[in-house]
Amino acid sequence: MDAMVWITGNVGTEVESRTVRDEFVYASFRLASTPRSWRAGEWSDGETTWLGVTCSKTLAKNVLASVKKGDPVVVVGRLRTSRWEDAEKGAQSRLTIEAIAVGHDLSGGVATFQRITRPVVDEKDTVAELIQATESQDPTGQEADVAAA
Amino acid sequence: MDAMVWITGNVGTEVESRTVRDEFVYASFRLASTPRSWRAGEWSDGETTWLGVTCSKTLAKNVLASVKKGDPVVVVGRLRTSRWEDAEKGAQSRLTIEAIAVGHDLSGGVATFQRITRPVVDEKDTVAELIQATESQDPTGQEADVAAA
Amino acid sequence: MDAMVWITGNVGTEVESRTVRDEFVYASFRLASTPRSWRAGEWSDGETTWLGVTCSKTLAKNVLASVKKGDPVVVVGRLRTSRWEDAEKGAQSRLTIEAIAVGHDLSGGVATFQRITRPVVDEKDTVAELIQATESQDPTGQEADVAAA
Amino acid sequence: MDAMVWITGNVGTEVESRTVRDEFVYASFRLASTPRSWRAGEWSDGETTWLGVTCSKTLAKNVLASVKKGDPVVVVGRLRTSRWEDAEKGAQSRLTIEAIAVGHDLSGGVATFQRITRPVVDEKDTVAELIQATESQDPTGQEADVAAA
Repeated sequence: MDAMVWITGNVGTEVESRTVRDEFVYASFRLASTPRSWRAGEWSDGETTWLGVTCSKTLAKNVLASVKKGDPVVVVGRLRTSRWEDAEKGAQSRLTIEAIAVGHDLSGGVATFQRITRPVVDEKDTVAELIQATESQDPTGQEADVAAA
Repeated sequence: MDAMVWITGNVGTEVESRTVRDEFVYASFRLASTPRSWRAGEWSDGETTWLGVTCSKTLAKNVLASVKKGDPVVVVGRLRTSRWEDAEKGAQSRLTIEAIAVGHDLSGGVATFQRITRPVVDEKDTVAELIQATESQDPTGQEADVAAA
Repeated sequence: MDAMVWITGNVGTEVESRTVRDEFVYASFRLASTPRSWRAGEWSDGETTWLGVTCSKTLAKNVLASVKKGDPVVVVGRLRTSRWEDAEKGAQSRLTIEAIAVGHDLSGGVATFQRITRPVVDEKDTVAELIQATESQDPTGQEADVAAA
Repeated sequence: MDAMVWITGNVGTEVESRTVRDEFVYASFRLASTPRSWRAGEWSDGETTWLGVTCSKTLAKNVLASVKKGDPVVVVGRLRTSRWEDAEKGAQSRLTIEAIAVGHDLSGGVATFQRITRPVVDEKDTVAELIQATESQDPTGQEADVAAA
């Protein structure tokens, strides 16, 4: 059994990251997708669907370096449920998308892309180092522009 | 009946565009997707699938301004068949993806994104004008960097 | 923005139905999807994802007549969020799949199928009438009918 | 890189099967999917997309026993390209769907389903034996069983 989804929407939070045993990097954000439907002769917005998106390894590093709150993105991945025990509320669960691919949705803007053919940094390097490495490859200051946008 | 696909792969051609009646812009490119599979204890590449991808309207304009040959992208859209009559070869058909969303696959690199909240240019403007408008918004010369990459 | 999903899983409840203004029929059920993953040299079950599935019109009628608790099914549709106000708990929301297509997953068993080419019954007819109509079309063995079709 | 599709359409051929080394069963059929689109105030049919669908193992056996030419089905799977050398025509390729799940699309009719919890027949058994086994499990009317369930 499996469950696969593609979704377009806006990133609703800053991207958060977590490094496990100095090795694996996870990145996550919340995604808001508001469908439009044609009713009674005009387009109207439906209810917004919020889903968590988690990325790992290289995808996590690059999402951290590239995606900001408010960006329109397209995500494909697997629907998965996380379960945990909360001391007060008892059994909790949350539905998330384990991302296979994430990209800026070019329906909503333009992007400049820089391929990283080989791992710029070793798998054990931290996200901070990755961002630093990415910036140093970019002497014209793309990073600053984006932060200001 | 419908057929929807998501696909990750590398752009195998330059993006081509076509303007119809000075109004609608179409952009298209060929996409190459090579699956990896686990056989006999190691990963090996499968046969490459080639599919044409067509984009229209705002997505077409932004893909033209953002996507280059060789870029890894994620595409979601509808599988559609085009049919036409060739004077020599007779009835011809081709399967393409009518794109709903296109983005650079951040599994393969990093991107800087600039949202275009309102149409920068009127729907009747040509692609050339869009690209010009996009460049003039970008005094630091991202466009040149990407062209040189 | 949109969110589309395909999912395979087992129907975890009986199919429930609701008729609105004697016209539209809705059918819904809960679907349980348990992914298997390869960890440490063997397959193991992951956490089960539960999602509500809603069907409308002809699909709703045929799902009511065909799908039972425990059946393995494949569902494609849109991810949508319903929101409502609960007198005690406050604002509530639920994620569901608005089904585009539902079928028994033939990975898990065999099916006999009977096409209903034209609406056997008027849109205003009730589900009970549909089931009666379907049954009366097939007084004997389905297998022979289908083979002859 | 990957390419996944869901598609609804009508089975355009009889299901064909092939047994390799008395072990693996493959089943295949051609699927025709005709999209409807809203143009100039009315629905019209678009061009039909034809795709080959291949199934393996248990799914292949059950599709062989369940699916007939003309049936509406929903298929989810991977888009894959087969390549081979033809003595006369040279290099040939074909795009197919490697099915993950296949089911009768209940938008178009009703189905009775019988779960096969354990392999009814050994993996080495032929398809003929599977069909025989399936039929002998259901000597009377399926419809009555389902109605009573």
